[in-house]
Amino acid sequence: MSERNPVSPVHVNASSFPSVDFMNTFLPAGYRYAGVRAGINPSSDKSKKDLALIISGVPAVAAGVFTKNRVKAAPVLLCKRRINNKISAIVVNSGNANACTGQQGFDDAVRMGRTLAELLDVPETRTLVCSTGTIGVPMPVKVIDAGIRDAVTKLAPDSADDVASAIMTTDTKPKQVTRTFNIGGRQITVHGLAKGSGMISPNMATMLAFILTDAAVDRPALKSCLKDAVDLSFNRVTVDGDMSTNDTVIALANGLADNKPLRPGAPGWKAFQTAIREVTLELALMIAADGEGATKLVTVIVRGAASPKDAQLAAKSVANSLLVKTAWYGSDPNWGRVMAALGYSGAKIQPDRVSISYNDLCVVRNGISANAPIKRFSEIIEHPKFTIEISLGLGKNETTVYSCDISHEYVNLNASYMT
Amino acid sequence: MSERNPVSPVHVNASSFPSVDFMNTFLPAGYRYAGVRAGINPSSDKSKKDLALIISGVPAVAAGVFTKNRVKAAPVLLCKRRINNKISAIVVNSGNANACTGQQGFDDAVRMGRTLAELLDVPETRTLVCSTGTIGVPMPVKVIDAGIRDAVTKLAPDSADDVASAIMTTDTKPKQVTRTFNIGGRQITVHGLAKGSGMISPNMATMLAFILTDAAVDRPALKSCLKDAVDLSFNRVTVDGDMSTNDTVIALANGLADNKPLRPGAPGWKAFQTAIREVTLELALMIAADGEGATKLVTVIVRGAASPKDAQLAAKSVANSLLVKTAWYGSDPNWGRVMAALGYSGAKIQPDRVSISYNDLCVVRNGISANAPIKRFSEIIEHPKFTIEISLGLGKNETTVYSCDISHEYVNLNASYMT
Repeated sequence: MSERNPVSPVHVNASSFPSVDFMNTFLPAGYRYAGVRAGINPSSDKSKKDLALIISGVPAVAAGVFTKNRVKAAPVLLCKRRINNKISAIVVNSGNANACTGQQGFDDAVRMGRTLAELLDVPETRTLVCSTGTIGVPMPVKVIDAGIRDAVTKLAPDSADDVASAIMTTDTKPKQVTRTFNIGGRQITVHGLAKGSGMISPNMATMLAFILTDAAVDRPALKSCLKDAVDLSFNRVTVDGDMSTNDTVIALANGLADNKPLRPGAPGWKAFQTAIREVTLELALMIAADGEGATKLVTVIVRGAASPKDAQLAAKSVANSLLVKTAWYGSDPNWGRVMAALGYSGAKIQPDRVSISYNDLCVVRNGISANAPIKRFSEIIEHPKFTIEISLGLGKNETTVYSCDISHEYVNLNASYMT
Repeated sequence: MSERNPVSPVHVNASSFPSVDFMNTFLPAGYRYAGVRAGINPSSDKSKKDLALIISGVPAVAAGVFTKNRVKAAPVLLCKRRINNKISAIVVNSGNANACTGQQGFDDAVRMGRTLAELLDVPETRTLVCSTGTIGVPMPVKVIDAGIRDAVTKLAPDSADDVASAIMTTDTKPKQVTRTFNIGGRQITVHGLAKGSGMISPNMATMLAFILTDAAVDRPALKSCLKDAVDLSFNRVTVDGDMSTNDTVIALANGLADNKPLRPGAPGWKAFQTAIREVTLELALMIAADGEGATKLVTVIVRGAASPKDAQLAAKSVANSLLVKTAWYGSDPNWGRVMAALGYSGAKIQPDRVSISYNDLCVVRNGISANAPIKRFSEIIEHPKFTIEISLGLGKNETTVYSCDISHEYVNLNASYMT
């Protein structure tokens, strides 16, 4: 197989990782996609697709990172059991999280995989199941069965866009990214699809993400590469500080690029690692920018922390502070709330060593106002995108977190998600 | 001295503590009050009082509980130095937090106390200073000096209401509570004044509270009694999860009731302890109900936790979850978000042992839907006041936290607090 399929162009930012040559217009070899309307949540928009399939023609090596929430949805429990198998197919639904649904919910997840496996004539242990949506509502199994049957008839190598749409909940935009590069004359493609929006917090976003590649990769290498990339991307995004029951990132590598299997130290490993990092970071930034009701994407950088943990605590405290986030929304030049959030973060802080800059404008020096011109300060935070750089002056540890503001629209969306 | 002064009647709830006889119409003996408009924040409402004095005619035994935020405002640092002294006078301002203002801010706080001490002819070490308002703005010392001079001329034993008004920031209502009881024929009064609103979180609310009594109390006893009461009240209130740089609770006991000094085991100690607990809890509930933009007061009770810490983690996680709080605002019968918040709380959770009730309606049993009638569920959460009781089924530890919803108005207030 060598078909290369078109994918909708996506906006690609300069990234903080060393770049490799890439093109953004191809999908990896050997995958087929479908996205259909099954009608899982009858009260949702009737044109909204809600069931998706991702199929690999040859069984793929798989890796997964799952929510650390102790209340795990049934499909998460099922995926954790199967992630070390080779995987042929993934079924994903939106509209119902299949969480807090007990044994029946687990049986329903198994049934989703089984229905798909039978239709594709693959072992059911080679299927994975993901769900996102409302918690605590039994799965409408007949609706889902019919949806799977319908979707199988629509599988096509160029339908990735339908998957990206079908997995959306309160997302306003589908999210896809690709990277293509060469190893020893073999072209490798890495393709990512994700949904995000509410309940996004480090460890991890309420999100589903699928990273598909035609590279041949050793399973342990894929696993460590994915974990490392998730730590640098999805685990650094925060929308509202809530962590969901369903967060799942799955990577599949089907080997159809016919390269020498990738592992640390092997030729092309660095390029592969970079591609995975770029795809996950790009998706994570798309999720932050498309946070529920978000109008601003804010990068919070903490430097000079006494330990890596202090850097994390400080950055997350600022990025999650409701007072800080509403000030961003209102373009309010209020650095005091950032200082307060640092102070209660639990990180080691010496107030008179703290400096804070918004983009290149220093507003706090040695813990007190640097008397920055209020007009310039206001101009910066009126932008839909800016960076807050905090120096704690206590060490050499640093981290970066991506956040967004909290708006009226966030309250609107979440005051009536269920009803 | 034996004057008893009228105070505005306040709403008093049934409380969870054993009740003592009390009347709500008197102030403790020996205190004088003033609240004036100094004009500290020129952009605020011109009729808003912003500077208050509380004076005890005889030096009072004092105790304080202060913010655990590592970024502490100058007046907090000053109070911590002086709290073991006998105290004659407190000056409080709203409109400027005098936080993140460096050495100059500390000098300004000292100056506020000194100005007041000179006018009253008491040692400056017997004064305390509290501030609330915007962080990072230098104190307008001349405006404040003039305000203190003005306020001293207005001191009166019946002006507590002016203090309650002057210390407000985004509070919509002044907050005062009194309790009166008898010990050995001596009438004792405990009077509390507080301001709350934004940046309220356990350990502690962004709040100032003053607990004034005419009881004679040993200092160590007052200290432990206050700490215990704060743990059961202010530290159980959460509005937005932010903790301020200025949180302060101060208790003064001037001994003018002429009772035998109170200490654990002494006659009347229990009654005194109960009165302090009732006053602080009442003030804390007023703060939660008057949280910025809040429309609902929600009591979150966690039972059956494996340890006291697990109970705390679980209750605070639910009470602080932005998704849970916006669902309250929208009267959305969404218990899934409560389960999710329990799951990421860090508390020991076994999902299939969790039960959740709203008032008397069980909506989750053994981790899954109890199929409660949605109409009854909706009716409960439409009320401005309801209780969520969570049973974790893992032990005998429990706790209670008081929270409120997050509304459009919260976003309005905080998107432009500074500008």
